[in-house]
Amino acid sequence: MADEAAVRAQAEAVRRLKQDKADPDEIAKEVAKLLEMKAQLGGDEGKHKFVLKTPKGTRDYSPKQMAIRERVFNAIITCFKRHGAEVIDTPVFELKETLTGKYGEDSKLIYDLKDQGGELLSLRYDLTVPLARYLAMNKITNIKRYHIAKVYRRDNPAMTRGRYREFYQCDFDIAGQFDPMIPDAECLKIVHEILSDLQLGDFLIKVNDRRILDGMFAVCGVPDSKFRTICSSVDKLDKMPWEEVRSEMVGEKGLSPEAADRIGEYVQLHGGPDLIERLLQDPKLSQNKLAKEGLGDTKLLFEYLTLFGITGKISFDLSLARGLDYYTGVIFEAVLLQQENDHVEEPVSVGSVAGGGRYDGLVGMFDPKGRKVPCVGVSIGIERIFSILEQRVEASEEKIRTTETQVLVASAQKKLLEERLKLISELWDAGIKAEVLYKKNPKLLNQLQYCEETGIPLVAIVGEQELKDGVVKLRVVATREEVNVRRESLVEEIRMRTSQP
Amino acid sequence: MADEAAVRAQAEAVRRLKQDKADPDEIAKEVAKLLEMKAQLGGDEGKHKFVLKTPKGTRDYSPKQMAIRERVFNAIITCFKRHGAEVIDTPVFELKETLTGKYGEDSKLIYDLKDQGGELLSLRYDLTVPLARYLAMNKITNIKRYHIAKVYRRDNPAMTRGRYREFYQCDFDIAGQFDPMIPDAECLKIVHEILSDLQLGDFLIKVNDRRILDGMFAVCGVPDSKFRTICSSVDKLDKMPWEEVRSEMVGEKGLSPEAADRIGEYVQLHGGPDLIERLLQDPKLSQNKLAKEGLGDTKLLFEYLTLFGITGKISFDLSLARGLDYYTGVIFEAVLLQQENDHVEEPVSVGSVAGGGRYDGLVGMFDPKGRKVPCVGVSIGIERIFSILEQRVEASEEKIRTTETQVLVASAQKKLLEERLKLISELWDAGIKAEVLYKKNPKLLNQLQYCEETGIPLVAIVGEQELKDGVVKLRVVATREEVNVRRESLVEEIRMRTSQP
Repeated sequence: MADEAAVRAQAEAVRRLKQDKADPDEIAKEVAKLLEMKAQLGGDEGKHKFVLKTPKGTRDYSPKQMAIRERVFNAIITCFKRHGAEVIDTPVFELKETLTGKYGEDSKLIYDLKDQGGELLSLRYDLTVPLARYLAMNKITNIKRYHIAKVYRRDNPAMTRGRYREFYQCDFDIAGQFDPMIPDAECLKIVHEILSDLQLGDFLIKVNDRRILDGMFAVCGVPDSKFRTICSSVDKLDKMPWEEVRSEMVGEKGLSPEAADRIGEYVQLHGGPDLIERLLQDPKLSQNKLAKEGLGDTKLLFEYLTLFGITGKISFDLSLARGLDYYTGVIFEAVLLQQENDHVEEPVSVGSVAGGGRYDGLVGMFDPKGRKVPCVGVSIGIERIFSILEQRVEASEEKIRTTETQVLVASAQKKLLEERLKLISELWDAGIKAEVLYKKNPKLLNQLQYCEETGIPLVAIVGEQELKDGVVKLRVVATREEVNVRRESLVEEIRMRTSQP
Repeated sequence: MADEAAVRAQAEAVRRLKQDKADPDEIAKEVAKLLEMKAQLGGDEGKHKFVLKTPKGTRDYSPKQMAIRERVFNAIITCFKRHGAEVIDTPVFELKETLTGKYGEDSKLIYDLKDQGGELLSLRYDLTVPLARYLAMNKITNIKRYHIAKVYRRDNPAMTRGRYREFYQCDFDIAGQFDPMIPDAECLKIVHEILSDLQLGDFLIKVNDRRILDGMFAVCGVPDSKFRTICSSVDKLDKMPWEEVRSEMVGEKGLSPEAADRIGEYVQLHGGPDLIERLLQDPKLSQNKLAKEGLGDTKLLFEYLTLFGITGKISFDLSLARGLDYYTGVIFEAVLLQQENDHVEEPVSVGSVAGGGRYDGLVGMFDPKGRKVPCVGVSIGIERIFSILEQRVEASEEKIRTTETQVLVASAQKKLLEERLKLISELWDAGIKAEVLYKKNPKLLNQLQYCEETGIPLVAIVGEQELKDGVVKLRVVATREEVNVRRESLVEEIRMRTSQP
């Protein structure tokens, strides 16, 4: 009976044999023993948990999932390029110090690499801090770039809801000293375009400003030192009712009940330009410099959003806080709205699919002289979008092709492998996407079945007679129509029949 | 005067203040002090080595580099799709055990993650082992897939020659039980297509078979236990002369001089089908079962390569060994040939840009019952190719566009920001790639200059008069030609003028 320790010892023994370059037969024998022990262990626990899994919170993408993922990426990249963005890439890990002090309480979720006798490294937690490091390091004061890459968080995964420890972020950021709110408005336009393009259903983009939040905390009587922690309580309002958030503020965080109640009045407010006007007249808020600045800029933002024609899906929402430390101005978050049925009065939010904001201080944290580069950006949460689309495909039984093959090169008779290989080589060289079964003498039925299964639309059949006549029999899989095509016209014929309308 | 220890202490102090949610002003003060200390330290050592770098052996990709990289990726993906490949993705890290015992001596180059109280993880070392794990885990016995992703090796980087610790691999593999050498031949065809498409200059694909090597070692009198280590000596023949390799075999590895000399006779052989025939008649090799099998299959391989018309660039080369443990049949490696000048008799190899082979045992190592899935695959070494193309672009002074923007929306007069935003919003919504300067009142000259710098071909200029007339002035940047276009025809006009021929 094998147990885990015994298996480990055996694995170590195998490792040593290999290291010592022992007799291959001996190694093979010990490896077989190891596999047997592992199989036993797996069998006992109901599954082979030893090797046959991906790490916690991660997953493989199958060809079908990749096909869906590529559709989403294409929509997003097309949008980013439509807005004139360049693209950069950065390493998957950074010096540990680069990430230190950027994520507040979430820093504990960072994956560190083992100290193997060199630099101390961590996997990137987002794409924003690497961008700031990149800008400071290369003294770039001006860029509009996108970056699509995986980021890593040792969070509790909720994979059915699209929350993973390894996940993609699709970021678009504008860095540079510009006139106020123009780039900020473009980021919101981009979110609007992407969510509309992907046809995920109705959505809402909540907007707020860190300066309004800070001003609000000040006029409500929150001590300076509690701004960030009270802010992170406010951030929970999309998941918890006000009463619970209030008791966290008062009970756990020691805020006075009066201050909490004053906050409670503000954070239930949401609306549009009218609300901004009202708050600009608010006797307390209007006296606070930060809040006034924030409100003035939000007003300007809404003017630009009106020009873009997208205010219908934007809500100025005083309860939006966002967790990250580095935001300094506008913040926003897009949520999908679920219309369960027509009787539901208010659509229910099913979670954030995009978010972002302005972070004018982050690049300066990396610059030796503290030179600032103002930045604003948006991050699209691809995994949740991907989950939704995947479920939709499953439900609709839509058949997704995982290859783009235009034609299968086949034969009806035996001994024609050489002729098939000659023909497919011609097709490949002409740029035709073509496959052939890797069998010497495949049955025609099997070849046709392969086309049905994989969605290949055409079959090019070579046979003795066709070879003699200098033609290829082209069969349309869907209609079973067959035509003889002269060999020299085959490429053109395949192109014509498979060109996208 | 700051030293590293003091800076670290200060960094820790800042971290604690943040953790304790101290007064933001106090934190800001201490952060400023920290930055000052870091700047001093950096100044002393000539550079700010503290934070402003990427980890050793890694690099960022600038927009220009990304533009080149995307060209290369497109050529490779197009080829993989032409051959009917699906695509998969796997996590960047695997359970440490998944990688254990797969890479022989190179296992020491694997990056481990820190044990943070969960599973023991390592960054993937290649894409082949994750594929094998994926196939075994999902009980897939049949797939043709490509996978393009970063892999990680704690090697000594030689970045000027395109060798990094983080680098892309572009893998194409065919898994399944098929008739011999058909998928193997397709892998070589793919290498041939990609290297031809990329126009990297002349190249040569060396081919050998692990069974021929093992048979050769056996008939030369190498003891079984020394097969792998002698094989890795042979592998060095592309960098070292035979005499040095021989003395490593005899001196370091304890091989008899007679055996080494017999190996020496074989490994200098390279050629085509004639050589295979000769070796099939070789009195010693022909008596060895493994060697005979390998030679027979290599003969068949060359028949298929002849049908594909690519034998001109293929060399059967008995000195090709390849390091990895998991190969079981055909192995191959593509090298670029440098024509220094016409006087050089023999072209010099400048290094491997692709390699691969057959590994029929790897999936079975993951299957609890040891079920085998035969596999053959190729990996394109993108970084070296990328280095070559980058140098070529630098040398040619070719101007590479890093965006695809078709038109800049500009104005000649002041106070037209709103009109610019309205127009660009119309263009975006119609799918036109458009930019606008984020200034309230930019100078026309600056707007035109921006187009020159970034290669934007068209400028759409709004002015009081144009607005009144319902037109937009469209300027062609290259020719300075200007035409008034009716607003409702603008999208069509831009499309027409920027469509690719």
